[in-house]
Amino acid sequence: MENVISATAAAVLRGEVRATARLMRALDDRLPGSTDVLRALYPHTGRARVIGLTGNPGSGKSTLAARLVGHWRAAGLKVGVLAVDPSSPYSGGAILGDRIRMMEHAADPGVFIRSLATRGALGGLSRSTGDLVHVLDAMGCDVVLIETVGVGQDEIDIMRTADTVAVVVVPGLGDEVQAIKAGILEIADVFVVNKADVDGADRTVADLRTLQMLQSVTPPWQPPIVSTVAARGEGVASLAAELDRHGAWLRKTGAASGRLRERAAFVISSLVRDACGRAVDRWLAGPGAALVDEVAQRHTDPFAAAHLALQATVLQRAPVL
Amino acid sequence: MENVISATAAAVLRGEVRATARLMRALDDRLPGSTDVLRALYPHTGRARVIGLTGNPGSGKSTLAARLVGHWRAAGLKVGVLAVDPSSPYSGGAILGDRIRMMEHAADPGVFIRSLATRGALGGLSRSTGDLVHVLDAMGCDVVLIETVGVGQDEIDIMRTADTVAVVVVPGLGDEVQAIKAGILEIADVFVVNKADVDGADRTVADLRTLQMLQSVTPPWQPPIVSTVAARGEGVASLAAELDRHGAWLRKTGAASGRLRERAAFVISSLVRDACGRAVDRWLAGPGAALVDEVAQRHTDPFAAAHLALQATVLQRAPVL
Repeated sequence: MENVISATAAAVLRGEVRATARLMRALDDRLPGSTDVLRALYPHTGRARVIGLTGNPGSGKSTLAARLVGHWRAAGLKVGVLAVDPSSPYSGGAILGDRIRMMEHAADPGVFIRSLATRGALGGLSRSTGDLVHVLDAMGCDVVLIETVGVGQDEIDIMRTADTVAVVVVPGLGDEVQAIKAGILEIADVFVVNKADVDGADRTVADLRTLQMLQSVTPPWQPPIVSTVAARGEGVASLAAELDRHGAWLRKTGAASGRLRERAAFVISSLVRDACGRAVDRWLAGPGAALVDEVAQRHTDPFAAAHLALQATVLQRAPVL
Repeated sequence: MENVISATAAAVLRGEVRATARLMRALDDRLPGSTDVLRALYPHTGRARVIGLTGNPGSGKSTLAARLVGHWRAAGLKVGVLAVDPSSPYSGGAILGDRIRMMEHAADPGVFIRSLATRGALGGLSRSTGDLVHVLDAMGCDVVLIETVGVGQDEIDIMRTADTVAVVVVPGLGDEVQAIKAGILEIADVFVVNKADVDGADRTVADLRTLQMLQSVTPPWQPPIVSTVAARGEGVASLAAELDRHGAWLRKTGAASGRLRERAAFVISSLVRDACGRAVDRWLAGPGAALVDEVAQRHTDPFAAAHLALQATVLQRAPVL
């Protein structure tokens, strides 16, 4: 086992694609030893720039992602892509859909693409995203692009994994989008107004500027607003330049180390939550099944049941991380 | 303390709005005793029908929610509404935005409306949603409507709280929506094609039918597809009737008890995860701060750190639920 672990780690560090893909699947399936490989890789991570790209369905975010990958490839960079798909809580499968636009890069050995599906497990998604970033970092990617849909709690958690977050908005999605904008103001390091050739694009840029001006505190980094037409590749170089500028700002001001600390605390906490939760889930599906019935029938309240579950699991034996 | 708890519980059970609002705020702020009130209410819950309504921004979901509330009010039902807003991980505030459409019901004593913001806490949102459903149920609501944006992991978790889930889609949002549809197929009990008066509505209905036909297994309940024009109130009565029909099906087939079991297990597990996570978070912010630094600087790997955090917190003293 020891040998397999160090051999796999070495293969990933040499940038071998098949070993990397195999490790990623093993991490997904929580195969024994996969975590040990990750631990062996950990000291060799921290080199890649991690870029988050998020936006609502229909924002052209995937086309933009493919364009960015093309830009970085032209600059000779090795690129990793993690595409996070919302998916069924039951089937656990990733959805293809708009992944197709990324296919032009699928045959390029300098691009490693991986789709992640949520598996209906609490916190499972954000944990695995972080793990896969480490693997891509260790296998020599210069840039790792994480692409997510929307700006819910999931996306916020995932974005904690990124150094720089770009939020894509499009003109004319109606007033409900305004409400969301207020939420994304604080996760965005760069705004992208995509489909900048359609009516209302100037208005969207102006709206974003207004929202920024209305902030009660001027943030140390004011997110630039970049206009793009991803379908034609327009504005992609400017976007890449702004992402670089934010990266340089992070390093110069020391803000990077604050983000690293925040991310470290988040990862440690997620690992413990996840381990405790899995121990309880296993117990509830087996010896604790009668307790679930009692709560379902309202003979026991959930807090009393959680107390019993905690006693029977985590406090009985330290859960496996 | 004992007296305050039973007095608050009694006031909520009498349907007093101010006591209910106060309890909800206390639960949000995790004030001491608030959980005890919830426990006292628990045996009196299980009467309300819980309806989930989800859909992307721009789907007109909030207008539809307001119309449904109007429909139920006209039938003499007491209605609770929980509107889950995506929001900042920093400010913790709820966003108003499209809540405004619900305002016509704000002055109606038979409608209790509450906006929930995510607070950037892992699992915090889904837990509090479930708690607030119990409170609204206990205070005498006949129907509790939970409204969320999107269909990410959060929404899936929240929807586990509902008996019946309606998913709103609109015509012509482009092909990225198709990808999401595949994910929502399995959480939807009823499909709503809103804005059914615009071009492409027939096509959207046909697409949904096709997706349903392509399922490898015919589900025991085939979700009906209801066309609505929420802005004009069209189709709202049909939607309400389909929601009722699903409720009747749940009760008749015993599927309801399966959902109750699943929900109970989810709540127990979430409570334990949350308690363990909070204990770790507190520790990392204090005595464990040096460990966070070590991980941030890659001198310690996150798994070793999580092991230490687990030893120093949860295993040292049972976390408070």
